[in-house]
Amino acid sequence: MDNTLFTVNNVWMMICTALVFLMHLGFSLLEIGLTRQKNTINILFKNVFILSIGLVLYALVGFNLMYPGSFIYGILPDHFFNLFGLSLPENGLTAEYAHGSYTYWTDFLFQGMFAATAATIVSGAVAERIKLGSFMIFTIIYVGIVYPITGSWKWGTGWLDGLGFYDFAGSTLVHSVGGWAALVAVWLLGARIGKFKKDGSIGAIPGHNIPLATTGVFILWIGWFGFNGGSVLSADPGKTSLVLVTTCLAAASGGLAAFLVSLFRYKQYDLSMFLNGVLGGLVGITAGADIMSVSDAILIGFIAGILIVLGVGFIDRLKLDDPVGAIAVHLICGIWGTLAVGIFGELAGWDQFGHQIIGVVSIGAFCMTSAFTILMILKKTVGLRVSEVEEQDGLDIHEHGMDAYPDFRLNQH
Amino acid sequence: MDNTLFTVNNVWMMICTALVFLMHLGFSLLEIGLTRQKNTINILFKNVFILSIGLVLYALVGFNLMYPGSFIYGILPDHFFNLFGLSLPENGLTAEYAHGSYTYWTDFLFQGMFAATAATIVSGAVAERIKLGSFMIFTIIYVGIVYPITGSWKWGTGWLDGLGFYDFAGSTLVHSVGGWAALVAVWLLGARIGKFKKDGSIGAIPGHNIPLATTGVFILWIGWFGFNGGSVLSADPGKTSLVLVTTCLAAASGGLAAFLVSLFRYKQYDLSMFLNGVLGGLVGITAGADIMSVSDAILIGFIAGILIVLGVGFIDRLKLDDPVGAIAVHLICGIWGTLAVGIFGELAGWDQFGHQIIGVVSIGAFCMTSAFTILMILKKTVGLRVSEVEEQDGLDIHEHGMDAYPDFRLNQH
Amino acid sequence: MDNTLFTVNNVWMMICTALVFLMHLGFSLLEIGLTRQKNTINILFKNVFILSIGLVLYALVGFNLMYPGSFIYGILPDHFFNLFGLSLPENGLTAEYAHGSYTYWTDFLFQGMFAATAATIVSGAVAERIKLGSFMIFTIIYVGIVYPITGSWKWGTGWLDGLGFYDFAGSTLVHSVGGWAALVAVWLLGARIGKFKKDGSIGAIPGHNIPLATTGVFILWIGWFGFNGGSVLSADPGKTSLVLVTTCLAAASGGLAAFLVSLFRYKQYDLSMFLNGVLGGLVGITAGADIMSVSDAILIGFIAGILIVLGVGFIDRLKLDDPVGAIAVHLICGIWGTLAVGIFGELAGWDQFGHQIIGVVSIGAFCMTSAFTILMILKKTVGLRVSEVEEQDGLDIHEHGMDAYPDFRLNQH
Repeated sequence: MDNTLFTVNNVWMMICTALVFLMHLGFSLLEIGLTRQKNTINILFKNVFILSIGLVLYALVGFNLMYPGSFIYGILPDHFFNLFGLSLPENGLTAEYAHGSYTYWTDFLFQGMFAATAATIVSGAVAERIKLGSFMIFTIIYVGIVYPITGSWKWGTGWLDGLGFYDFAGSTLVHSVGGWAALVAVWLLGARIGKFKKDGSIGAIPGHNIPLATTGVFILWIGWFGFNGGSVLSADPGKTSLVLVTTCLAAASGGLAAFLVSLFRYKQYDLSMFLNGVLGGLVGITAGADIMSVSDAILIGFIAGILIVLGVGFIDRLKLDDPVGAIAVHLICGIWGTLAVGIFGELAGWDQFGHQIIGVVSIGAFCMTSAFTILMILKKTVGLRVSEVEEQDGLDIHEHGMDAYPDFRLNQH
Repeated sequence: MDNTLFTVNNVWMMICTALVFLMHLGFSLLEIGLTRQKNTINILFKNVFILSIGLVLYALVGFNLMYPGSFIYGILPDHFFNLFGLSLPENGLTAEYAHGSYTYWTDFLFQGMFAATAATIVSGAVAERIKLGSFMIFTIIYVGIVYPITGSWKWGTGWLDGLGFYDFAGSTLVHSVGGWAALVAVWLLGARIGKFKKDGSIGAIPGHNIPLATTGVFILWIGWFGFNGGSVLSADPGKTSLVLVTTCLAAASGGLAAFLVSLFRYKQYDLSMFLNGVLGGLVGITAGADIMSVSDAILIGFIAGILIVLGVGFIDRLKLDDPVGAIAVHLICGIWGTLAVGIFGELAGWDQFGHQIIGVVSIGAFCMTSAFTILMILKKTVGLRVSEVEEQDGLDIHEHGMDAYPDFRLNQH
Repeated sequence: MDNTLFTVNNVWMMICTALVFLMHLGFSLLEIGLTRQKNTINILFKNVFILSIGLVLYALVGFNLMYPGSFIYGILPDHFFNLFGLSLPENGLTAEYAHGSYTYWTDFLFQGMFAATAATIVSGAVAERIKLGSFMIFTIIYVGIVYPITGSWKWGTGWLDGLGFYDFAGSTLVHSVGGWAALVAVWLLGARIGKFKKDGSIGAIPGHNIPLATTGVFILWIGWFGFNGGSVLSADPGKTSLVLVTTCLAAASGGLAAFLVSLFRYKQYDLSMFLNGVLGGLVGITAGADIMSVSDAILIGFIAGILIVLGVGFIDRLKLDDPVGAIAVHLICGIWGTLAVGIFGELAGWDQFGHQIIGVVSIGAFCMTSAFTILMILKKTVGLRVSEVEEQDGLDIHEHGMDAYPDFRLNQH
């Protein structure tokens, strides 16, 4: 490849990496905004931890495990135990040309930022009641091993790739992988005290800072410029710019749909639903952002927005307590987006639809089994859930000895 | 054009698009920060709505209406009713080469991000008392039709462009277009309860979160890297980097001027004025960011900063209630920046000054007439303003059934 | 150089400039988050002022003073008094090719964003008690003259550069330059009322908004993508992407180390330490980000994280009151990172270690002397510290007549 074009591609991929990095801030703000003040430090701690351990683990294990695509190969001792496996290639050429259109380093960092995302999705769903230590152990195993394995099936040119399964930027490989674990975790953990009352009614547990939650969604949206835009794996002008257009239009129409449906259903202009609709649209377009037309993208996003409103209600009726709506956003819309590849766009057709279902089901089965095994072992040993007193007082005081707004005062005027 | 250079230009334009996207977060934070807590959800809702509907409308109508530059042509049935007009060009080449130095998709998304800005400017000025439904209808018409029409006059190579009117990145075409509507809306709406007292004194109505307002200004500043930097419409190194330099220096000197003038006038280090001075400097340099020297940029920004302090006081004396200073920032400094093109820089001269005045006046007349017509019809039919009870209680509870900080508690130490 | 490659390099450098700009938002949020609410406006004002005056001063004086590398040359009248020295080069070619791989304008703006950083570091350490006017005078001299002089010693190809001193992106030239001044300022100012009690105990003075502080750290981290990534001074794919990898891994492992050490020492999951560990890792890798392997980066970051925990305790024991931990982060880790160049990576060796020590000591001596002189003169004339009443009431009311959250109310449910 032309040297200059290689440089351009690499610049684009580095920018996308930075944008995906930003998503971790977006998730942090969204999660603390939608939960109670007394658990804010705990959630921020988890998110900073996930990003930090995620990157280090991906350097030590994950990157080698996920590529070149065979997890059998990946876990052979010389790879699995190849600590600091990400060694400096002996010459610049290797570093620069290991991958087709950007460097080995860029490849690692872009994928590493993705890996940490899976655990962040779980973090929101289990907020306000999971033991920090147990969550950290879960994160290490899930991000370090489970995510790279399922990733290898498709992006590491594994068996699902061979089959024809299509997942452009990870509706399934990232979002559902997080979503399935969130589902299992929420089920094993049980609901927060006060969520589901004895009389069968559902108690609303309000968040504490909607401006920060909204900021989080804006930041996630811009992060998706990199998440989807970088998944082109080059700066190809036609493809990258189409992806940004489909991504933004799906987000916009997802938000509008969720707002309209919730206005119709609940007679209120519901900001939380609008925001979750935007996220649903983003997750929904992710699997096929590069192969959809403008009208496809608007429709996929719109349906995702409707699914969000229905999904949030449905999960509540199942007595599953997901404080931030992570399961509706990442799992339901992740599945929707993956299936949509068989319905809309360039690949639409029954065959493709079949491949998409196989991908959804196989990865769902593997993720649920893995998550269940890890979390069940944790539950039976160190325990998953904080004590009732800790939950009532908030995790911040007990686990961190700290308050999120320790010197906050009302103004005296 | 060389393929690689095309790719570079496109990468730069996509980055600028992302930065302009960020401005919507900046505006949101600025507006909620400078207004009362009880209307926070309402303002956030408006801003997320504007961005979402703005993008979808620009795909459906605006982009076709604004280019190729004749609004007569734009509203012919085959264009106006060409829903989902932004169809995937049949071959990649068209998508890539439709525009000179970046793709059709990039062009759409960059311009679409701009379009939504005009309504956001209005949003701040009418905050805390406008009916949400009426504002949404106004937004749809103003962003969907009015903005593309005036835009076509210059950027769509229409009559103002032929005349020699110069507006590099939109001091007039974006900021004044929003500012004129803000002026009309504020006048038709009337002031918030408590702003102008019977004894003639002016009641200060403080905002609720200055840290978020300040964050908003920082984000707007970085957004302007894309707003002005992207208006070069290529990655031309000399032009783009000059534009960033003039933009940043005008912002800096605008802030310093507003701080110094307000220190001199009110004997206080006024952070709000500093921040509005920065924004005034940014709006002021926008019309000529690519044709000014460093000293020109510093002077234009400095004068904009002075105008902000005088303008905010002047608007108060006119008994116009603009909670966030949008009219001073976007209209007064938008006019100033447009006229400055005839005074400073490469185009300075009486002829050019005349062209600039024609642009300011013609667009002002069209925008004021349009905004007045739309808003007056809304006022006479569904009404523009919420009831007195709603205004006193806050729009969040009445329109959204929600509080911005529902679980916020003071720490118990 | 190939025209297109020049354009790519320039695009990358402009993006890095924007990211370094963002660091000013990151510092602002970190500082206000870790300090008391009553001084929030004051800190925000300082940070917006630093950025604004920093950019204008760098245009007027600093850029000419710092390059081409001789401060004697720089202060000759025709340069020093060359107001608006950054004039538009007479032809486009000069603007584009003055520097090797990007334009004169990009060079100015990237370096200008760096310059302002040095004063920002001081701002955090002296928060909650310094007189605003005195701090502004200090900033003008320190950013306008001291920073460019020491900068010229290395980056302006001055004597330290000739000697073989290595400081890739400024562990010493930026962070320690700020850190030394912070140390002197904290010492001359004295501790905040209530920090060190008569019985010898140390009073914790909590911050007021940990979510904003955490947001600040995320933003600083992404800012470092530009700070270090841009210090390659081109878009060279191998170098820039390696730098991003070492930067991110050092940040991650710095955070993990600080968390583990503080967990071991204080039996708590300390979010503040985690965050400062991330920053310590970032400062630590900065001097050698381009010449370290992955394992080097992880180790350098890890040691920086340990130093943070020890350093914060050590500074407390010295009875130095640094509200945000700026001295531990920027000075201690700045020195560590500079020395690490002699211990790890491509340049490791006793000779290099010696050069690094000379750099640390000479710049430390110059900065401490300069800072002491400026601050001592200010102390003896206009005074450095606010009155006891002002400190107790908060600087916001006295200097700004404003409250950070003037309309904040608890929800009534």
